Amino acid sequence: MARNRKIYLREDEMPRQWYNLAADLKTPPYMSPDGAVPPEAWAPVFPMNLVEQEYSTERWIDIPEGVMELLTRWRPSPLHRAYDLEEALGTPARIYYKNESLSPAGSHKPNTAVTQAWYNKEFGIKRLTTETGAGQWGSALSFACSLIGLECKVFMVRISFDQKPFRKLMMQTWGGICVASPSNETQAGKAILEKDPDTPGSLGIAISEAIEQAVTDKSGQTRYSLGSVTNFVCLHQTVIGLETKKQLEKAGEKKVDIVIGCAGGGSNFAGLSFPFLYDKMNGADIDIIPVEPSSCPTMTRGPYVYDNGDTAEMVPLVAMYSLGHKFIPPPIHAGGLRYHGMSPLVSKAIKDGLMSPLALHQLECYKAGILFSKTEGIIPAPETTHAIAATIREANKAKEEGKEKVIVFNFSGHGLMDLAGYDKYLAGELTDYELPDEVIRENLKVIENYPKP
Amino acid sequence: MARNRKIYLREDEMPRQWYNLAADLKTPPYMSPDGAVPPEAWAPVFPMNLVEQEYSTERWIDIPEGVMELLTRWRPSPLHRAYDLEEALGTPARIYYKNESLSPAGSHKPNTAVTQAWYNKEFGIKRLTTETGAGQWGSALSFACSLIGLECKVFMVRISFDQKPFRKLMMQTWGGICVASPSNETQAGKAILEKDPDTPGSLGIAISEAIEQAVTDKSGQTRYSLGSVTNFVCLHQTVIGLETKKQLEKAGEKKVDIVIGCAGGGSNFAGLSFPFLYDKMNGADIDIIPVEPSSCPTMTRGPYVYDNGDTAEMVPLVAMYSLGHKFIPPPIHAGGLRYHGMSPLVSKAIKDGLMSPLALHQLECYKAGILFSKTEGIIPAPETTHAIAATIREANKAKEEGKEKVIVFNFSGHGLMDLAGYDKYLAGELTDYELPDEVIRENLKVIENYPKP
Repeated sequence: MARNRKIYLREDEMPRQWYNLAADLKTPPYMSPDGAVPPEAWAPVFPMNLVEQEYSTERWIDIPEGVMELLTRWRPSPLHRAYDLEEALGTPARIYYKNESLSPAGSHKPNTAVTQAWYNKEFGIKRLTTETGAGQWGSALSFACSLIGLECKVFMVRISFDQKPFRKLMMQTWGGICVASPSNETQAGKAILEKDPDTPGSLGIAISEAIEQAVTDKSGQTRYSLGSVTNFVCLHQTVIGLETKKQLEKAGEKKVDIVIGCAGGGSNFAGLSFPFLYDKMNGADIDIIPVEPSSCPTMTRGPYVYDNGDTAEMVPLVAMYSLGHKFIPPPIHAGGLRYHGMSPLVSKAIKDGLMSPLALHQLECYKAGILFSKTEGIIPAPETTHAIAATIREANKAKEEGKEKVIVFNFSGHGLMDLAGYDKYLAGELTDYELPDEVIRENLKVIENYPKP
Repeated sequence: MARNRKIYLREDEMPRQWYNLAADLKTPPYMSPDGAVPPEAWAPVFPMNLVEQEYSTERWIDIPEGVMELLTRWRPSPLHRAYDLEEALGTPARIYYKNESLSPAGSHKPNTAVTQAWYNKEFGIKRLTTETGAGQWGSALSFACSLIGLECKVFMVRISFDQKPFRKLMMQTWGGICVASPSNETQAGKAILEKDPDTPGSLGIAISEAIEQAVTDKSGQTRYSLGSVTNFVCLHQTVIGLETKKQLEKAGEKKVDIVIGCAGGGSNFAGLSFPFLYDKMNGADIDIIPVEPSSCPTMTRGPYVYDNGDTAEMVPLVAMYSLGHKFIPPPIHAGGLRYHGMSPLVSKAIKDGLMSPLALHQLECYKAGILFSKTEGIIPAPETTHAIAATIREANKAKEEGKEKVIVFNFSGHGLMDLAGYDKYLAGELTDYELPDEVIRENLKVIENYPKP
């Protein structure tokens, strides 16, 4: 027992402030066709206390006592040293992973879910609407609303709704209401269903439905909640990286070489990486790698443009890497990585050359997930396997170079609700899919006439 | 943040010895029709290093370094103070729960799974067979075998196999092989299927199949692994209670009033309660409550008898509370509590008046599970809801009496793989079932002529 597998923090060692990357990175403003969009324009969508965070350029923002109280339900999360994965790879690299899978919803998502629920309740809101891809966000928000006493309505991308019935049951158990998207409950949903009744749906469509239900509630007591992409979500998730830095210090690590996370909308990746990016901007030599699926290659093959975050064009334009807001990715199992865009903060950091995005095919990722399950023992979510596969690549590179690198990745969620994907992989039923250039070109036509960042 | 929700231990604070209740409690010996069964008789079933533990009356048994190394994959587990459940109940009781749901398999089962895998490997065994009810044990053993490099074959009770396909996928992901029981792979299975092709199966039948495959392997490199009932399983699980005692001390609790666990074969209950029972036998005033489902009321309505642990009568007779080894309980969702017998150590402690068993109906338990999900935030396994419902009863009693009691229960596993039961409960499709006296009488006829303890 000379070695410790897990590095814990006590509750009183948790960070008391979030790190706001917007203080150190100049992102282009939200836009309408007429120009920059002021905070007030968001009032029907988000409560104003969260909108203030969205526009804030304060570097450190206090975490309210009430939010701390909610976070301590399951935080701080342990940092693991992946001794057995290292051994299996025969790498001189020291691999650490931040275990965000131990939350009651099984992923990092509750970090911002309970925070948003708390701010909404403070603002007098009674009901939240949202969308969900793989179901992790929908269950996280149902969990959060249940704890704090808000109603919760979730639009779940149809392909995931059908593939993952247990996610719906999870939301129900916490008292949330879950419907398949596109649905007949909104104008946005009906319009899509009329054109394509068999659509697998997409995050963009589901977002439009959720926003529509929030802004059209005449009581004014409904708001929309978003699980990724926005600045305030990235902000809330920085507890991950801030804890990790303290834990690496406890483990005696003086320097981190590589920081890795999977990125769909960007939130778990931002949560781990932004505090390290702060160090990088202050001179530290760190390679920061967001990993996406090759079938939805937003960061690696999309341009940096102004685009809508939602399919129905209801919200302001945002500067980000995007495949176009009408893009519907093929139905791979990593549902949480099927978003057409990318967090504006993550996008700007990439644009500024501060990060090294990577796209991986799903077979390599599932293979990595199986190796991780059999060595470290925890079955990763399909999304998380992208971070693991990238970590394995870097660990093998360190082996070739004979270098003792320190690699940290975010174990964003467990795969216990996503085993059907593993089943198909083990049965040899999955294949890789390379998105053709012309599909990307075609999808980008919709934003041809938008302003350029 | 004046209050801590979770009490952690460091890895170096983990217990280094198991507590063996057999040192303090005289249990009747294993029997054959000819008399007491010596340790050697078990040689084809278990490796002799585990058989030695089964017969040991040493009070404290060292945990080998190699087992410690495996346990630290996820241990020590946190002890939670259930502030929000207390508040919802308005009780003056202080409620704590030991969170065993954070293991990679989602329950307490890996505590003995990795330990048995380690002892088998030490003994030169290459392959383990086992049975599983709800699937928690089968996935725990697959996990353990995967970490340590053993083959794993699991016979899963058919009713659960059909209701819980994801458990099978979990085993597969860790490399285990899972078949529905009764199967056509064994004589025991074939015999049952011939008589009743539509049987839902039972733990007793599945045990018989797993044992048959182990003892009939002519290479001598296969053994059977059991997830509950035996003395050595209870022994391995005492890390739960030993950690809990240290954590309660850290929380400033000088006295524990009530200790609660659900009991199917008895292992999670034994693991939490035996270290407290040691205190009780040394003068402490503690009420210790094992909780079972009313549909399988082994402890509350079964007699204390000699009976077989398995349906096919392949293993020696053991003194325990039992409903008869041919008893097949109705298919309630708490599959892990559907065993006809009870751990000999737990049984003897009850017989000696040291424990107060309780039987509960499933509607009360699911209701408790929903309340727990919405207050504490974690969705409990259906088995675990029995412990929660009993805790709520005791907390309400403390409220009526106006007493500040300290209640500790074992949160043995999460319910993320068992959401279909919650779905049926929420849809109003579940009913309670009272087992008729004549069914019990009928089932006990099979052991009429057995020796009496």
